[in-house]
Amino acid sequence: MFNKRTDLAVEAREMYGKGEKQEIPGVAVDVSDNNGVKVTRVNIQQEVGARIMNKPIGNYITIEAEGLKRRDRDVYEEVSRALGEEMKRVASVDKESTTLVVGLGNWNVTPDSLGPKVISHLMVTRHVFEYLPDQVDEGVSPVCAISPGVLGITGIETGEIIEGLVSRIKPDRVIAIDALASRKMERINATIQIADTGISPGSGVGNKRKELNRETLGVPVIAIGVPTVVDAATMASDTIDMVVDTMIKQTEEGKEFYQVLKKMQGEDRYGLIREVLSPNIGNLVVTPKEIDDMVRDMSKILANGLNIFLHPSIGPEDVDRYIN
Amino acid sequence: MFNKRTDLAVEAREMYGKGEKQEIPGVAVDVSDNNGVKVTRVNIQQEVGARIMNKPIGNYITIEAEGLKRRDRDVYEEVSRALGEEMKRVASVDKESTTLVVGLGNWNVTPDSLGPKVISHLMVTRHVFEYLPDQVDEGVSPVCAISPGVLGITGIETGEIIEGLVSRIKPDRVIAIDALASRKMERINATIQIADTGISPGSGVGNKRKELNRETLGVPVIAIGVPTVVDAATMASDTIDMVVDTMIKQTEEGKEFYQVLKKMQGEDRYGLIREVLSPNIGNLVVTPKEIDDMVRDMSKILANGLNIFLHPSIGPEDVDRYIN
Amino acid sequence: MFNKRTDLAVEAREMYGKGEKQEIPGVAVDVSDNNGVKVTRVNIQQEVGARIMNKPIGNYITIEAEGLKRRDRDVYEEVSRALGEEMKRVASVDKESTTLVVGLGNWNVTPDSLGPKVISHLMVTRHVFEYLPDQVDEGVSPVCAISPGVLGITGIETGEIIEGLVSRIKPDRVIAIDALASRKMERINATIQIADTGISPGSGVGNKRKELNRETLGVPVIAIGVPTVVDAATMASDTIDMVVDTMIKQTEEGKEFYQVLKKMQGEDRYGLIREVLSPNIGNLVVTPKEIDDMVRDMSKILANGLNIFLHPSIGPEDVDRYIN
Amino acid sequence: MFNKRTDLAVEAREMYGKGEKQEIPGVAVDVSDNNGVKVTRVNIQQEVGARIMNKPIGNYITIEAEGLKRRDRDVYEEVSRALGEEMKRVASVDKESTTLVVGLGNWNVTPDSLGPKVISHLMVTRHVFEYLPDQVDEGVSPVCAISPGVLGITGIETGEIIEGLVSRIKPDRVIAIDALASRKMERINATIQIADTGISPGSGVGNKRKELNRETLGVPVIAIGVPTVVDAATMASDTIDMVVDTMIKQTEEGKEFYQVLKKMQGEDRYGLIREVLSPNIGNLVVTPKEIDDMVRDMSKILANGLNIFLHPSIGPEDVDRYIN
Repeated sequence: MFNKRTDLAVEAREMYGKGEKQEIPGVAVDVSDNNGVKVTRVNIQQEVGARIMNKPIGNYITIEAEGLKRRDRDVYEEVSRALGEEMKRVASVDKESTTLVVGLGNWNVTPDSLGPKVISHLMVTRHVFEYLPDQVDEGVSPVCAISPGVLGITGIETGEIIEGLVSRIKPDRVIAIDALASRKMERINATIQIADTGISPGSGVGNKRKELNRETLGVPVIAIGVPTVVDAATMASDTIDMVVDTMIKQTEEGKEFYQVLKKMQGEDRYGLIREVLSPNIGNLVVTPKEIDDMVRDMSKILANGLNIFLHPSIGPEDVDRYIN
Repeated sequence: MFNKRTDLAVEAREMYGKGEKQEIPGVAVDVSDNNGVKVTRVNIQQEVGARIMNKPIGNYITIEAEGLKRRDRDVYEEVSRALGEEMKRVASVDKESTTLVVGLGNWNVTPDSLGPKVISHLMVTRHVFEYLPDQVDEGVSPVCAISPGVLGITGIETGEIIEGLVSRIKPDRVIAIDALASRKMERINATIQIADTGISPGSGVGNKRKELNRETLGVPVIAIGVPTVVDAATMASDTIDMVVDTMIKQTEEGKEFYQVLKKMQGEDRYGLIREVLSPNIGNLVVTPKEIDDMVRDMSKILANGLNIFLHPSIGPEDVDRYIN
Repeated sequence: MFNKRTDLAVEAREMYGKGEKQEIPGVAVDVSDNNGVKVTRVNIQQEVGARIMNKPIGNYITIEAEGLKRRDRDVYEEVSRALGEEMKRVASVDKESTTLVVGLGNWNVTPDSLGPKVISHLMVTRHVFEYLPDQVDEGVSPVCAISPGVLGITGIETGEIIEGLVSRIKPDRVIAIDALASRKMERINATIQIADTGISPGSGVGNKRKELNRETLGVPVIAIGVPTVVDAATMASDTIDMVVDTMIKQTEEGKEFYQVLKKMQGEDRYGLIREVLSPNIGNLVVTPKEIDDMVRDMSKILANGLNIFLHPSIGPEDVDRYIN
Repeated sequence: MFNKRTDLAVEAREMYGKGEKQEIPGVAVDVSDNNGVKVTRVNIQQEVGARIMNKPIGNYITIEAEGLKRRDRDVYEEVSRALGEEMKRVASVDKESTTLVVGLGNWNVTPDSLGPKVISHLMVTRHVFEYLPDQVDEGVSPVCAISPGVLGITGIETGEIIEGLVSRIKPDRVIAIDALASRKMERINATIQIADTGISPGSGVGNKRKELNRETLGVPVIAIGVPTVVDAATMASDTIDMVVDTMIKQTEEGKEFYQVLKKMQGEDRYGLIREVLSPNIGNLVVTPKEIDDMVRDMSKILANGLNIFLHPSIGPEDVDRYIN
C-alpha cells in the first residue's frame, strides 16, 4: 500500500489517506506545540497499525521546528531541551545503568556525518565510573560512545561491530544516531525523530544494511534520526505532483494533464522518473548548499539534548557548556 | 532567447537549435577525443555569436571525461595532462612573467570549496624568485596564489580584494578557479571549462556578484570552472522534459500530456516549478552523495594540470609529485 | 641587553632586573585582578623605556588567567569580556568607521592557526552596511575580515596583501590576530596580549617577516597575540636555569655547578644549546599535547571578545551566541 | 637498569653499554642499508635479552630514513616498499585468512592521529569477499579496519572494543598502528618500528593503558609504530647531557660541571627536571612545527606499505594508486 519507503513515522502517517488526515486504526497520535517547537508522538499499538504504517509497534516521537532552518539560536536551545524531555518517555537512566551511544554514518560524507559528529560532542563518563568512582559527580550516569564507521571504510558490517561491543561491555541500552533521507524537502535539518524500536534495515542516508534493535542486540535500542537529504528521484516525482496540483488550481488547462498523470499509478510514475534520470541518479541527493554548517549545528543540538537527558545534573541553564 | 542561464559554453551551444546541433553564426567549434578525454573548443568570434551564446567573444574549452565520475585514476592523469595542454592555447608563461591564481568560493561549503582546495595543492614560487633567485629551478615560472573567501565570511567583495592585490603585486595574468552550477546532472564533476574571458557576474555555485576580467583587473583573466551542483529547480524542470519525451516514445497516452506542456513556454514552466518548490528551494542543490571525495579529487586534478602548465620542467611523469 | 627576543611585553619586563621586579624608566605599569583574570597594562611612554623593553612606545595590555589552561568555561567568558573591555582602551568603534580584522598565520599548522580560526568565528557586517544599509541593527559597527595565508602558501608577503587591501577598501583601523612564541611554558594558551603598536618584523610562530603598523598601512594597527608554543632551545635553556636554581636551594653541591654556568653569559649558553640540538632543533617546538583543542577554544574566546567590542549591542549575556 | 622507558627496541639497545655499542646476550641484530633506507632487525631470542631490553621475546624491525624528514617523495616510496617487504618477515597473508588493522590514537590530537589516518587510506576488502566473492581480484586478501578512538572520547578501553570485535569477526591476525613517543628528537617522523609482540601497556603518545597481543586477543598481533613526539622532560634531560658532553670536549671549564652532574644518577637528574618543569610539563611535548603535514604524509607511507603487503597484486609500480 505504501510503496515509497520513508524513515519518518510522520511521513508514513501523512501518506495514509491521501492528504486528508485520517485516523489510522491501532495508532494513537498526540501533538503539542511549545515556543515554535512542535512535538508529534505517534504510538503504534497494534499489528494493524504497524502494517499500515510499515513500521514495528512502538513509539515514534517527532520534534519539528521551522526555526532550525533559519538557524535561530534560541530555537536551538528549545529543541535541545525538548529532545532531553522526550527521551524520558522512551528510556530512563540512573547511575547504576550504562548507556552506549552509537554514531552511525560516514564522517567523510557531509550529509551522512551527523552520527559521528554527535559522538564528538557527547559527555562520556563510563571510564570515570570505572576507574575513578569517587570522582563521579551527582546526577551523572555512565555513558560510553562509539562511531563505528561504514562498511566501505571498515569492511565490517556496523551491526557486527556493535554486537561485538555490546556482548563485551554489556550496556543497559543503546542509543543510535543516524542521518535519514526524507521524502520532503522542508524536513531537511528541521525534524528529529526518536523511535524506541531501533534501526530497521535499509534506512539512513548511506543505505546501510544494518539492523539494530532489541532482537539483534539483546537490549533496548532507541534510534534518533534527522533527515539531511531528499533522494533526487523522490524530489522530481513530488515536484511533478505539486506542479499538477498547482496547475489544477490555477487553470482549466491542467485538467487533461491531470487525467494522464492520474492514469499512471504513483509507483509507475516514480519508476519512470528513475529510469529517465538513470544512470546518473543513483547517488544524487538534494540537499541545502549550507549542509556543512547545518549538520554541524544539528549535531550540537542533539549532543546537547542527550547530555541533558543522560546527566540530569546538567540543568537547562548549562545547555551549551558541555559541548565543544 | 536563452533565458535559463548556464555557465558552460557547451551547454549554451546545446540549447541552440532545440537539441539538433546547428551551426551558430560567428562561432567556430572544434572537437577532439583522446583516451576517453573529449575536448571541445568553442571560439566565439563575432558579436552575433556572442549574443546567441549569451557569452563574451573569446575561447571556451571544455574537457570532459566519463571516467572522472567513476573515479578512475588513469583518467585523472589524462585529464590533468589535457588541462596542462589546453591552457597553452589561452596563455603562455615564462620565468619573466608572474601568474596569480585565485581560488574562488567558500571553503566551508563542500561544493563551493573547489577553488580554495586547488590553491592548497598548487606549487607557488614567486617568493623564491623574489628572495632566493639563485635557488630557482629551470623551467619554473613565478606563481603566487590566494583564496580570498566569500562576501559572507569577509564582508568584502571578492573583486575588491583581488583588485587591491593586483594593483599591489602587478601580475601578468590571473587564473581564477571556481565551482560552477551546471544544467545537467551528468556534467557534475565530469567537466572542466577553460575560458579566456574571465568570470562574469552572477556565475558560480555561490552566486557571487564579482566580475573578474581584463576590464576590471587590467590583465588577462583565464577562468577555470567545474560544475559541482545542479540547481534543484532546474533538475525538476529538466526531469519533467525527459519524462514527457520518454512517455511520447513509449505510449500514445503521452500525446495529450505533451500538448499541455507544449502550450507552456519553457520559462513559464520553470517559473511554475520554482513557485511550487518555494520557499524551501532557494538554497537546495542536487549533488552526488560523495561530493566531499569528488571535490577533493577534482582539486588535485586541476592543481596537477596547472602545475604542469605553469612549471614546464614538471614533466607528465612527475604528475602527482608536486601535490599533496 | 635583552638578547633573547620575546613578543610579550610582560616577559620583556620580567627579564629586566634579573627576576627582582624593578621599575623601568619611561614605563608605567598598572595591574588589576578580577575573578581570576589578571590584567597588566604596560605603557611605554618614553624612548628610554622603549630601548630597555626592545619594543616601540605604546600600550601593551596582557590578560592572563590560569583557568584557561584548565579549560574552565566560566573563565572563558570572563576572559572574553575582559578582552572586550580592554580593547576600548586602545581603540573606539562606531557605525561610521570600518574595522578590518586580519587573521595571520597558517591554517594547516595547528599552533599557527589561531588567527584564521578567529576570523571564522567573527561577525562581519561591512557588506550589510554597504548593500542593505537599512537592515543594519543598532549598536553594530562595520567589520570586515581576511585570513591572507602565509608566504609559503601564497608566494606573497602578507604585508603586500594587506597593503593592497587597505589601499582599496580604506578601513579606519586594522586589528591583527597572531599566534606567538612565548619564552615560558606556563604562558602557552594562558595569556592574551593587546598592543596598539602593531606587529613587528620577525615575531609570531611562523617567523613571518611582515610588519604591520601605522607606518606601513597608514591607519592604526592593534595587534592581539596569544602564545601557543615555546621554542625548544629556549625551553632547554630555561630548564637548565631552573635546574641550577633548584639545586642551589636544595644542596650545597649545586654551588660549583652554578659557578661554571655563571661564567657563561646567557647568550653563550643559549648558543651552545642551539648548537647541541642542531640540526634537528630548527623546527621543533614545545607545545601541549591538546594544542588542537586549545587553539580552537582560544579562537572562540578571542572572537567572542572582539564581537563584544566591535558590536556594542551584543551584550555580555549574548556571549557565545554569535560564534559557531 | 633501564629506568627511562622507550617504545623503540633500537633505543633500548642504544641505552645498553652507555653509548659504545655492545652485544646484548640473547639478542641477535642484523642491519642493512638500501637507497638511504636503513633496516635494523633486532631479534630478542632469550629471556636474558628480554630482561635487559625490557621488551618481550620477539622480532623488532626498525626502518629509518633521513629523507623522511626532508619530505623527499622518492624516499617516501622506498620506505613504503621496505615496509611491505619487512612485514613479510613477521606475517604472511593469503586470500583464506583475514587481517584486522586497528588504528590506535586520537584523531583530534595531531601527533596522536597517525593510526586513524592510516586506516583512512587503507584498501579494505573483507566485505567484497563476503558479499561479492566473484568480484574479488586475484592477489587480494581479506582486510578489515577500525579506528576505535581513545578512552576519553569513548569511555571504553580500546582493548575492550578490539576484544569484542575480534571475538565477533575472528580475524587471523591483527595489525595495530600507533604513534609513539621517542627519546630522541632525530627519530621524530623518521623511524618506523614493526614488532610481532603486539602493544605493551602504557606505550604510545596518548599513554593508553591498553595491551594488545596474542594473550589478550588470541591471535598474533603485529604492532607498527612511528615516533611523533618527544616528552619535554626527556628532551631537557638529554639536552643537559649533550651540553655537558660538548662543554667537556670544548673547554676545561666543563670538568667541574661534569663532576657535579656525574654525582647525580641519571634518574635523579630526570626527576629533578620533571620537578622543575612542573606543574606545566605534564602534557607538554616537543614536536616539529609541521607536525600536521608530517603525520599526513607518514600515514600515507604506512598505508601504502600495508596495501602492498596485504594485496600482493598491487605491485610497487602501483604505489600511490590505492591511497587518497
